[in-house]
Amino acid sequence: MKRGLRKLRVKRFSGKGMESVEDVVAKEFPLTIVLNDEVLVNLVCFPSERKQLAIGYLFTERLISKIDDIKEAQEDNKRGIVWVRTKHKIKNLNEINKRRTITTGCGKGVTFQSGDKGEGLNKMRSDLRISPEEIQKLNRQLKTRSELYRETGCVHSAALCDRNKIIVYSEDIGRHNVIDKIIGKCLLEGIETSDSILIMSGRLSSEIILKAAVGGIPIVISRAAPTDISVKIAKEVDMTLIGFARGHRMNIYSGERRIVE
Amino acid sequence: MKRGLRKLRVKRFSGKGMESVEDVVAKEFPLTIVLNDEVLVNLVCFPSERKQLAIGYLFTERLISKIDDIKEAQEDNKRGIVWVRTKHKIKNLNEINKRRTITTGCGKGVTFQSGDKGEGLNKMRSDLRISPEEIQKLNRQLKTRSELYRETGCVHSAALCDRNKIIVYSEDIGRHNVIDKIIGKCLLEGIETSDSILIMSGRLSSEIILKAAVGGIPIVISRAAPTDISVKIAKEVDMTLIGFARGHRMNIYSGERRIVE
Repeated sequence: MKRGLRKLRVKRFSGKGMESVEDVVAKEFPLTIVLNDEVLVNLVCFPSERKQLAIGYLFTERLISKIDDIKEAQEDNKRGIVWVRTKHKIKNLNEINKRRTITTGCGKGVTFQSGDKGEGLNKMRSDLRISPEEIQKLNRQLKTRSELYRETGCVHSAALCDRNKIIVYSEDIGRHNVIDKIIGKCLLEGIETSDSILIMSGRLSSEIILKAAVGGIPIVISRAAPTDISVKIAKEVDMTLIGFARGHRMNIYSGERRIVE
Repeated sequence: MKRGLRKLRVKRFSGKGMESVEDVVAKEFPLTIVLNDEVLVNLVCFPSERKQLAIGYLFTERLISKIDDIKEAQEDNKRGIVWVRTKHKIKNLNEINKRRTITTGCGKGVTFQSGDKGEGLNKMRSDLRISPEEIQKLNRQLKTRSELYRETGCVHSAALCDRNKIIVYSEDIGRHNVIDKIIGKCLLEGIETSDSILIMSGRLSSEIILKAAVGGIPIVISRAAPTDISVKIAKEVDMTLIGFARGHRMNIYSGERRIVE
């Protein structure tokens, strides 16, 4: 069985009475990121690609700005820790931590006030174009690939693509983690994101769009919906934002210049 | 238009070319809870029932244990703040805050280590029983009620029910918030939860099950999936946990004694 899954016996009711069957659920794994000898954060994640998740997290939270900022990153899988040491001291870490403390909660993570959401982010310069047919094809590829999701129903999946195919694929129980894993993999493997497409299964809330924007991804697509602030940020950074991409239908919320018919 | 929604023009592609249409998205609203003159947390939520959300949050995070612990709660909607003052000082708030700091992140909120997840929680004593047909009926009622979700595709819904009907209904862009709103409403309106059923649209990750367990709800149902730790907690507190409740099918992960055929 695939790692990260757990078999258990459940009672299944199917209209014709109850039967005992074997079912598969996704594991939740608590992962601590220790940055320069201090506990930075404790994420609840699906136990795959933990180093990629940690590095992606540091990047999309803007604690590092390039892979070269990292001196070393070590995984301690038994204790569920990724240790990261940066070359230079991280400025304002206390300030950042304080800001984060107040943003926990039901935990949609990052919460700059709406006005500042896109602050300091670069505009997307990419001239990449994609057609609705290509989007439909990528959506199908994501669906085929996300076998684990189909098995457990509790996992989000996302893929970084070019116009024709998936380049990097990840899955996690958290919508945010899955983006961080993708970005972390790109950083570790030197994969350029500036002319790429992110396609995902989950809802497009503002933290997702912020993470994708920090990652410099010009086109973001989901079968689910965006929120008002997601659309606002996407417009600010000139990102192409597509929601409700299902079959040959889709809504283009921002950056329609990158869609060719 | 319903509060909390925003109209915008989008390009819709439907296979027959692109057209400009009016679409509706859910608003994201930053809500700060100030507890005894200190900022406790900043939640990103759907802008309804903010006082209920704040009080439910305090309860399910175990900062208060009953509504009488609250001296006053005031809403400042313009600034997006709920001010709460408790009768007695909250012990260990620093300790709790420190623990929470490290659990932010992609923000699945609460992260006690797996071993302690159900620590200090009471077992469910309820002898409530429900049949698959009744579950199917409640599921249909939730679907009918969650009109907003259907409109925007970005909102979770949940309802506290008895065997026949919805008693309390809430919706939010966050799975966690929606449970906190339900619990907050029950506290404010003196609604007993100890023989009730929680039915929701979102995935059953461990924080959801913890919040429901703190709320004393003996039966939790979703059309989505649980994780391994959710099932573990549900078994520990003798909660009936049902996933994949779709049409007349469902999986019973824990507490099957409350299901009658």
